[in-house]
Order: sequence, then C-alpha cells, then structure tokens
Amino acid sequence: MLLDLNSDLGEGFGDYAMGDDAAMLDVVTSANIACGFHAGDPAIMRRTCTLAVEKGVRIGAHVGHRDLRGFGRRAIAIAPADLRDETLHQIGALAAFAQAAGDRVRYVKPHGALYHQAAADRELADAIVAALRDFDTDLALLGPAATELERAARAAGTRFFGEGFADRAYTPEGRLAPRGLPGAVLGADAAVAQALSIAREGKAAAVDGGTVAVSAASICVHGDTPAAIEMARRIREALADSGLPVQAFT
Amino acid sequence: MLLDLNSDLGEGFGDYAMGDDAAMLDVVTSANIACGFHAGDPAIMRRTCTLAVEKGVRIGAHVGHRDLRGFGRRAIAIAPADLRDETLHQIGALAAFAQAAGDRVRYVKPHGALYHQAAADRELADAIVAALRDFDTDLALLGPAATELERAARAAGTRFFGEGFADRAYTPEGRLAPRGLPGAVLGADAAVAQALSIAREGKAAAVDGGTVAVSAASICVHGDTPAAIEMARRIREALADSGLPVQAFT
Amino acid sequence: MLLDLNSDLGEGFGDYAMGDDAAMLDVVTSANIACGFHAGDPAIMRRTCTLAVEKGVRIGAHVGHRDLRGFGRRAIAIAPADLRDETLHQIGALAAFAQAAGDRVRYVKPHGALYHQAAADRELADAIVAALRDFDTDLALLGPAATELERAARAAGTRFFGEGFADRAYTPEGRLAPRGLPGAVLGADAAVAQALSIAREGKAAAVDGGTVAVSAASICVHGDTPAAIEMARRIREALADSGLPVQAFT
Amino acid sequence: MLLDLNSDLGEGFGDYAMGDDAAMLDVVTSANIACGFHAGDPAIMRRTCTLAVEKGVRIGAHVGHRDLRGFGRRAIAIAPADLRDETLHQIGALAAFAQAAGDRVRYVKPHGALYHQAAADRELADAIVAALRDFDTDLALLGPAATELERAARAAGTRFFGEGFADRAYTPEGRLAPRGLPGAVLGADAAVAQALSIAREGKAAAVDGGTVAVSAASICVHGDTPAAIEMARRIREALADSGLPVQAFT
Repeated sequence: MLLDLNSDLGEGFGDYAMGDDAAMLDVVTSANIACGFHAGDPAIMRRTCTLAVEKGVRIGAHVGHRDLRGFGRRAIAIAPADLRDETLHQIGALAAFAQAAGDRVRYVKPHGALYHQAAADRELADAIVAALRDFDTDLALLGPAATELERAARAAGTRFFGEGFADRAYTPEGRLAPRGLPGAVLGADAAVAQALSIAREGKAAAVDGGTVAVSAASICVHGDTPAAIEMARRIREALADSGLPVQAFT
Repeated sequence: MLLDLNSDLGEGFGDYAMGDDAAMLDVVTSANIACGFHAGDPAIMRRTCTLAVEKGVRIGAHVGHRDLRGFGRRAIAIAPADLRDETLHQIGALAAFAQAAGDRVRYVKPHGALYHQAAADRELADAIVAALRDFDTDLALLGPAATELERAARAAGTRFFGEGFADRAYTPEGRLAPRGLPGAVLGADAAVAQALSIAREGKAAAVDGGTVAVSAASICVHGDTPAAIEMARRIREALADSGLPVQAFT
Repeated sequence: MLLDLNSDLGEGFGDYAMGDDAAMLDVVTSANIACGFHAGDPAIMRRTCTLAVEKGVRIGAHVGHRDLRGFGRRAIAIAPADLRDETLHQIGALAAFAQAAGDRVRYVKPHGALYHQAAADRELADAIVAALRDFDTDLALLGPAATELERAARAAGTRFFGEGFADRAYTPEGRLAPRGLPGAVLGADAAVAQALSIAREGKAAAVDGGTVAVSAASICVHGDTPAAIEMARRIREALADSGLPVQAFT
Repeated sequence: MLLDLNSDLGEGFGDYAMGDDAAMLDVVTSANIACGFHAGDPAIMRRTCTLAVEKGVRIGAHVGHRDLRGFGRRAIAIAPADLRDETLHQIGALAAFAQAAGDRVRYVKPHGALYHQAAADRELADAIVAALRDFDTDLALLGPAATELERAARAAGTRFFGEGFADRAYTPEGRLAPRGLPGAVLGADAAVAQALSIAREGKAAAVDGGTVAVSAASICVHGDTPAAIEMARRIREALADSGLPVQAFT
C-alpha cells in the first residue's frame, strides 16, 4: 500500500512567517494550504500554490474558522449554514490561485478546532461536505477515519481519505491521545516506526502499550521546527526504503 | 443603444445590513457583489448570488480594499503584486457562490477608493486586469472610461465597459465632480434626464452648465435609501418608455 | 426599590449602523457600550460616550468575543487567561473615551455568547472579574444573578448587580427561557407589567404559567427596532407612574 | 548628553512571533509597544508591559493603522477625526496593561506609514497630539524632529522628543534616506559610530558623504534579527564606554 504524506502549509499572514513551506514541499505529496480564515493571505496562497505545482505536490484546501487570533484552534459555535458558506468561500478563493498556478484543488481538509468539531458533529460534517460538493463533486475529503466526517462524505458519495499521525500515540479506541497524556507524543525513531506500521499493517501505538487499527491513506507531518522537518524527511525515506514510496492519494 | 444598469450589492456584514438588495435586483441588469474585503461575507455572497440568478441579473465581482472599517473608501498604498492577489482572491471566492447559484462571474468592477486609485495609476489598473485574466480571460472590466483602467484592459485584450452616473454632474474634463461641489449631485428629475441623455447621445451635464461626453455601457444606480431605489426605478422606466430597454452588457 | 434601565449601545461598525443610540440614551440610565471586539469602533465609542455623558447616563463596558462576523453571539472556546486580557483591553479602550467625554467607566457587562458562557463557567467568570479588578477595583459587574458571574464577583469582593428582562419569560428555575420556546417573548403590555413586578416584588413570569424570583437591580431594554424603543419608553414611564423612577445602580 | 534607546516591541499576533522582545528589553530604555492595530494582541500587550516593568524599561504606545495585513506599513487615507479616535483607543488599551503591570504609558510614537504620513501632514499630526492629550496631557511624543509631528506637539504644549537612527544614512536635508538608496543602510561598525556621533555632536552621516544635524533624544534600534540585537547591544556598550550611558527620556 502506498501512503501519502500531507502537511499544513501557507500558514503565514502578512509579515508573519510560519514554518518552512519550501522545505516541506520537498517532503510531502499533498499540501493542505490555508485559505485566509485561520491563517494565510492572498499573496501567501499564490506563493504556496505556485511552489506546490512546481514540486508536483497536490493542493488541498485547508479550511478553518475565521479566527486569525486563535489560529483556528478555538472551537466556535458556528451555524452549519454559515460553515457551509465559509467553507465554500475558502475553497473558491484557493481554487483561483491553484488554477493560476496551473493546477486545481483536489481535496478539502478541515483545520484545528473545526477538524475536531466536525469529526464529532454530523451537521457540521455535512456542511463541509455540502460546500465541497457545491464547488466540485470530484473533490475528496481528507480527515480522521471512522468519524462523522467520514460518514458525511460517504453518505454524499464523496471520496474520503483517512489520515494518521506518525508522531502521536492513539487511545485504545483509536482516537488521537491528547498531547498532555504521558506517551502521547512520540520521538523521531518511534514516529518513523509508526509510519511504517500504519503503511504496512494499518496499526499504530496505543497509549496503553497495545496497538490500535488506524485506517490512513495519508500521514500528517509538520514543518513548524527544523526537528519536525527532519522527522518528516526520515519518514519519507523509511517508507521508500521499505518499498512503500509515498504517493498522493488524489 | 441599449444601456445596462448596475448597482453595488451584497454590502452587509454579519448582522449588519446595507441597502435593500432584493429591491435593487428588480431594477438592475448587473449586480456588483461585494466579496468580503470591503464588505460582504460568505452568507451574504451566497444569498446575493442566488437572488441575482433568480432574477436574471448578471453577477460581477466588486473588488475592494481589505478595509471593512473604512468600507473600502479610504485609499491604501497597496503594492501592485498584492492588489493582483487580493483581487484574484475576491474573484475566486465570489465565483464559487455564483457557480453554486447556477451562473458565473461575468465581470469585475473595482470599488470605492480602489476604483479611483486604479483609474489614475496604471500599475494598479494592470494588477486588477492581471488578476481578472488569471481567473478567466473572458471576464470583462467595468469602470470609468478613458482612464488607466480602460487603457490597462485594452492593452491586455480584455473587454472594457464604461460606466456613467445618472445622478452626478461631471467636470468639463469628463470626470465625476466631487460631491462637495455645488451642483454635483442631481435631483431625481435631472438624474432621469441625464440617464436618457447618456443612453441616446453619450452626453451628461457638466458643472459649468455645459455638457460633456460620457462613454457608458452601463449606468450605476444606488439602493442605499428608499429615495435612491425609487430614482433607479424611474430611470429604468424612462429608458424603457424611450424605446431603450435596459440590458446587461455581458 | 429604584430600578436601573440598561441597554446595549454603540453597536455599529464603520459605515454600519445598529439601533438608535440617541433615542435609547433618553430612556436608559446605564449604557452598555461595545468596545470594538464584537461591535463598535473608536469613532462610535467616542460618540456614544459623549452622548451618554451629555444625557447623564452611566457608562459600562460591554465586553464580548473578538467576533464581529458573529456579533459576539457565537460561543468561542477561549482560554481564561486570554479572556482576562481581552476584557482588560476592552475596558481600557472604552475608559479612554469615557474620560475624554468627562466621565469614567462604572461597570462591566459581558455580551452575547460570553454572557452565557461566563454565567455557567467559573473560570471564565473569574477571568472577567480579574480583568475588571486589574483595571479598577471599584468597577461593578452587571449580569445574571445567581450564576458563576455573581459568585465570581462576590468571591473577589466586587460589587455585583443582577439584571432582569422585561420582555422575556423565565424558566421555573429562574433562567431566561430560550427565544424559541412558546411564550418566551412577551408583548409590550406584558413586558411593562413584568418590569413593574420585577421592581416591586422581584418576580417575573415563568413559561409554565407561574412566577419566579428574579433578583434585578437593572432591567435590560433594547433599541433595535422602533417598537423596542417604544416599549422601553413605556417601561420607564410605568415605573415612574408607580413611584419607582429609574435610577442608575452605580 | 544622555541618550535613550527605543525599540518597537510586542509586535507578534496570536501564534505569530516577531522579534525577540526579552532580549531587546535588556538593551533599550524605552519600549514602543504595539497596541493591537498594526500588530500586537491583548495577551502580548500584557506580557510585554510586564516584562518592560520588570526590566525598568519605559512604556510607550506604538500607535499604527488598523492594518494587520500590511503591518501598518501601508499609507491609509484616514480622516484626522478617525485617526484621533483610533489613537486614543490604542493608548487607552495599552494603558490598562501598563497599569496592571505596575506602571503607566509615558509617551506615544506613531508606527510605520503613520509615522511618515503624520510627519508630513499637520492635520494628522494634530490628530495624534489631540488623542495623546485626550488621554493625559503629561504624555510625551516621540518621533522625527523638525517635522509636522514636532510642530503639532509644540503648538499644543506637549513635550516632544526627536529620534534618530544609528544604522541609516540621512539625506543632506536631514531626512532618513530611503532604504533602496546606495549607502542608506549602515553596517554594524558605522552604526555604532553614528550613534556616538548623534549623542556627542548631534550629527549623522549623509548619503552625499557629508554630515547632517540630527536632533535626537533617543535612538531607534531593532530586534528583528540576531544581528540587529547584537548591533543594538554594541551601541549601548559604546555609549556607556564613552561616558554616555543610556537613559530613558521620560
């Protein structure tokens, strides 16, 4: 099974930088690009789309809450109809830059608090899927498997791809363990091993010491520190060395 | 010659209302819809696009400065490259709602301070035209004729349509007279007469008492007060009564 | 017992108007003035403070979430430390305008979703009280009685004043009945009667047909429609006619 | 003559960092703290004020345009009345944090494009001075000497302090040479020498190879790169070594 690597990119704003997008675009196969609500601005959206196309990386719309101050990480009690409209706005704006760069948006991934809210709330998940389909019924949805997001996508006939985390342990129930929990954050070696285990066997470490099934077509890696970028590179190499070269899911 | 009537619509934000969009969509043939930078939000963009399509009104992207506080009416020293990106962002976002409503964006019109800045600054005018062409080379540009906006459009091979004002007098040089000037703002009867004169003869009143050539494929009317809406209705009826029914320029 | 009447004012933004502040400042004794986060801008803050001082109305800081799009009516999962800082920012900014107008901020009232979140969450209530005390330990807190807001204020030694609603029915438990519930919104006559009943007996109508104790030093009235302003005027007159003239609680 | 060193601090926003405030607060005697319009947010304002007070650094309100996207570096055609209100809002908000940290705002310095606009436009300069005096007639104004800012301050009876730049050459007329000009940006050694020359003789390098009078009570240093911080440290040490220890102007 071939795995995709995805990362959250284009997260600066104006004079503010965030992460090393150029470095990460050499590692990943799919770029979740911020669309100006929780992060990103038009100049950064164009630059990131252009770089992604140059490096052959797939473009996804990383849609989030309108909350630059909170970087989209604070839950907001948004009405489903509003969420549908805010999601469509973000997809449409990013699509213009993707097209100007010579490609198109292939998938949508919710960001931050919206990711978790929509995973647990079918109305919000339906709103995201409805916006995705308003734009283009061929778009795929990337997110946590076996959640309302997957159910909403499948009910609407939208292709869904699950994502896993290499550097995080899971609860015995298959959910991401909260960062605060002992053992929740894995070191580089363990993360590389977990990426291989997800790719080969669909299994990840559980915080209780066991393993848990993780259905993932893509692994999310981060570029916020040099160490994170190095870990992402090692994961890509380890997959290739094991005969599992990374490949975009779309 | 058939004239188009255009109006600035979708200018509310969240709980804030601005003008009576539904009433104006019964009067005009082209709707300049705000795209969320100087006014408008995703819910209003969807609602306005849906109404416009229901009523057979053409959708244009009314692009403006990122300045909700100033309603896009304050000049901002924006870099041309940034303007190109901000314009593309706005067109792309509105296009998603136009498409979801069953139609598409047909033209771009700059708003407020940007309208005046780009009319006088070729670099800014070029940036708007470049964004328009990034999105779709078939889009038209609506704005003041015989300005840098028209020159930029023509140089790029983009269709340009001039707009006139029924309720405003012009300087002898053919520019809109500043609102503060005596005689600059016309009453309803004079505005109706000027609309007919622009449509039939391409002439408008000048503040010095003479007339001046105004090349306009479209007349801009306003919906911010009941009196303004009534004036717009009278202009439409007067044109129809004179055998010059209004018709979208796109 | 003398009652205060309070109203949410200064809720416009830029070119957007909201309510008739001048009319309401002739009716109320306390003005909850928006501070630029959920509504309001510096020009409106100055104008509203100046009007309030001219009319002898007390100035309160109406603090809300940083969410102009949602008008502060959407719950946001804000960290208590951030809420403390955002509250202090809003109080400080308003205080500058109150002082420039010749008076000072007398009290703080949370707005919209924050009102309800802080009523139910002691950490958020404590954060608001801490910010209030950071600014001036003499400030009072206005909000729903018998909630975490009252408990937080009392624990810190801050004066607390309960507020009631004339035009809304209560649940048998003494909470405001949700607007959707049948009988939750009272007509003008019933609202006037309820204002008198709260002032004289500390009792309001319950949705189950009975009455419920409501501890209120102030009644909140609204100015968003001409009918609402008329109702507010009638409440003020009815209180005066009953020998209970309104008077600011601070 | 004792010189002050000032620096622009507290310029992050939410998750976005900008510069190393803690390092710079060990070097400077006056901190121009962003107030949330062009940069900064309430949490950062509190943190920066607290750090400044701990390190004995004077707090100034660094007021700018409401333009986070442009970091306050784009000229905006703001009405003087609006500028007065926006400035007062920023001073008031920062003052609340300064007071919570145990001190108070001592001075105001305009930021970025506003700095240059107000230096050249007396109405804007007057608006800033009026806001400063609305808040506290004891506040000082820091900015470029021999400009409309100085004239506006002196006309109103407000103490004015000129600022110079160690790492920038001047035009023969005594204005800061634009960054693009050859020789406009000085290296570390030349900057240290220029700081000494400004302190001792009130003279700086001109781009034409001569010298020019620079009236400065304070020198502005930057903390955006490790090299900039190192240069600022060297300037402080060189001044001390020359018997001219830095000292706050307020």
